[in-house]
Amino acid sequence: MTKSYRVAILGATGAVGTELLELLEQRNFPVSDLKLLASEKSVGRTLHFQGEDLPIESVSDRAFENVDLVLASAGGSTSKTWAAVAVEKGAVVIDNSSAFRMNPEVPLVVPEVNPQAAANHKGIIANPNCTTILMTVAVWPLHQKRPVQRIVASTYQSASGAGAKAMAEVKTQASAILQGQSPVAEVLPYPLAFNLFPHNSPLNDLGYCEEEMKMVNETRKIFATPEIRITATCVRVPVLRAHSEAINLEFEEPFSPDEARAILSRSPGVKLLEDWGTNHFPMPIEATGIDEVLVGRIRQDISHPYGLELWLCGDQIRKGAALNAVQIAELLVEKNLLKPKTAYVSK
Amino acid sequence: MTKSYRVAILGATGAVGTELLELLEQRNFPVSDLKLLASEKSVGRTLHFQGEDLPIESVSDRAFENVDLVLASAGGSTSKTWAAVAVEKGAVVIDNSSAFRMNPEVPLVVPEVNPQAAANHKGIIANPNCTTILMTVAVWPLHQKRPVQRIVASTYQSASGAGAKAMAEVKTQASAILQGQSPVAEVLPYPLAFNLFPHNSPLNDLGYCEEEMKMVNETRKIFATPEIRITATCVRVPVLRAHSEAINLEFEEPFSPDEARAILSRSPGVKLLEDWGTNHFPMPIEATGIDEVLVGRIRQDISHPYGLELWLCGDQIRKGAALNAVQIAELLVEKNLLKPKTAYVSK
Repeated sequence: MTKSYRVAILGATGAVGTELLELLEQRNFPVSDLKLLASEKSVGRTLHFQGEDLPIESVSDRAFENVDLVLASAGGSTSKTWAAVAVEKGAVVIDNSSAFRMNPEVPLVVPEVNPQAAANHKGIIANPNCTTILMTVAVWPLHQKRPVQRIVASTYQSASGAGAKAMAEVKTQASAILQGQSPVAEVLPYPLAFNLFPHNSPLNDLGYCEEEMKMVNETRKIFATPEIRITATCVRVPVLRAHSEAINLEFEEPFSPDEARAILSRSPGVKLLEDWGTNHFPMPIEATGIDEVLVGRIRQDISHPYGLELWLCGDQIRKGAALNAVQIAELLVEKNLLKPKTAYVSK
Repeated sequence: MTKSYRVAILGATGAVGTELLELLEQRNFPVSDLKLLASEKSVGRTLHFQGEDLPIESVSDRAFENVDLVLASAGGSTSKTWAAVAVEKGAVVIDNSSAFRMNPEVPLVVPEVNPQAAANHKGIIANPNCTTILMTVAVWPLHQKRPVQRIVASTYQSASGAGAKAMAEVKTQASAILQGQSPVAEVLPYPLAFNLFPHNSPLNDLGYCEEEMKMVNETRKIFATPEIRITATCVRVPVLRAHSEAINLEFEEPFSPDEARAILSRSPGVKLLEDWGTNHFPMPIEATGIDEVLVGRIRQDISHPYGLELWLCGDQIRKGAALNAVQIAELLVEKNLLKPKTAYVSK
């Protein structure tokens, strides 16, 4: 008999939360009971799951009783407050916030890259940042063949990275501009429609923003390669929900584009999209709603003898967040790392 | 007495052409007579200049008679057809197309960078590609202090780079999408509204598109540094008329961000825009309609001991095209390199 699990989604009404709900249903994750947790103001609403309308409940200590798995996507401070409570009550937490990602006690997992890391969890597994997930899925297969020495990344990040409200704001702004009115920015600090700006996360003393340092530090942790040198420029663009990245890779020895292409064509989670004849390469609208990271424009870097250029797009909400979290949950099930609470109790 | 010149604009009705007209007026370029040339289908229309409505004329051999200066912005094939005719009739041609840029007989000029190159003109001076102009204005002052060894550039290019029709198309597409309809792409190969794609110029055998090779080859020519190593990823984004670029620079020795900042703060054509406290850096909407290239987010590259990261935005139509051409014309006047035809005749 297949085991099934009592699952809670923390932050169920957000852009990632609703996607988590959809993915659990689509992928037939073995759910015996689903609890939807969100902030007080969403209580009273319902969300649809497997033919039922489930009520939104508010978060409390008691909410995590009789839960085997928590998929958390309600921001860092909420995770910091509630993850330990959930773990104490016996649940495993897969956390989409940045709260625990760099905690050495917490595995940071991209299932296509470092599934083995999940085995060491002590109740919490961190889901990496969206830009990091997309980059690591594409770069890891190459890194395994020949170690990457340095990465120079530039991102083109969609509004979804700032949540459902930011996505709505971009549309409202675009509509205003098309009607000759001034756009209003309330969710994001500046108008994003027909505009773009460097990622607005807090800056460190070196001038790198948090989003960029996530790409640097999380990639090192996921690859278990602390010496890999990475720089990034993260930019928000007026796209709705898929991120794009221009990735420049430096190796210690030559790496032909054809070999990279051959490797990536059989790599999990990657879909090559390169039509050189029609100049057709990955675009955010094509990456939207699909599971794979689209990779293309693999080129020998003409400025570096051992350099490769590549271009990727991936659904920020899906593989960049919700899908990766559900894949981690599936991995836990597969490896018997997620035990229904009765099992915990019987230990 | 100030000399004044008989000027023709070839491609007067395009996005760059109309900007040329505006700039000649705004900057009080000494025009004694202005001829507006465009394709047959625009004949009959008029454009406003210094209080007059000037008729659009069609291009012909005779159109270039009694003209001292041609500002050409009607595409490469038009320039190839007419530039020699204009020169033969005694005019100097400042050409905004790519037709002559890499011709060793033709100076390729960014007035803030290599004004001296203009002196060697033989009738034609090429105006560089927009992305190249913006990058060279920002990088040249640093390169003069310590030679740049390698550039890794990623661009965020606005619709204006594909002309006025592309700008209109992005708005039409956005409007359709906001109304729940499918966007139609006719000018550009793919929908650009709420989307983006690698630049759709023709690809070479190495997988670089023409736009990228322009950044590589034109920068080398303008800097007169053929050995500088450059790679670029050029991307069209749904912004109307200013381009942005993420520029990673490698030097042979350390270059502190503060020193770079000090140099750029006094460099011609550059305006530093860095408010680290409010995370406010150059944005396309701020670069639109201004002359300067906005530069900011100057950072020590944490992946390279001698690396610098910077971010810039510049008006693609203005400094990226029309303004640079008018500045070349002003330079010719200032250096007495543009002679009214009477002077030519009297030699």
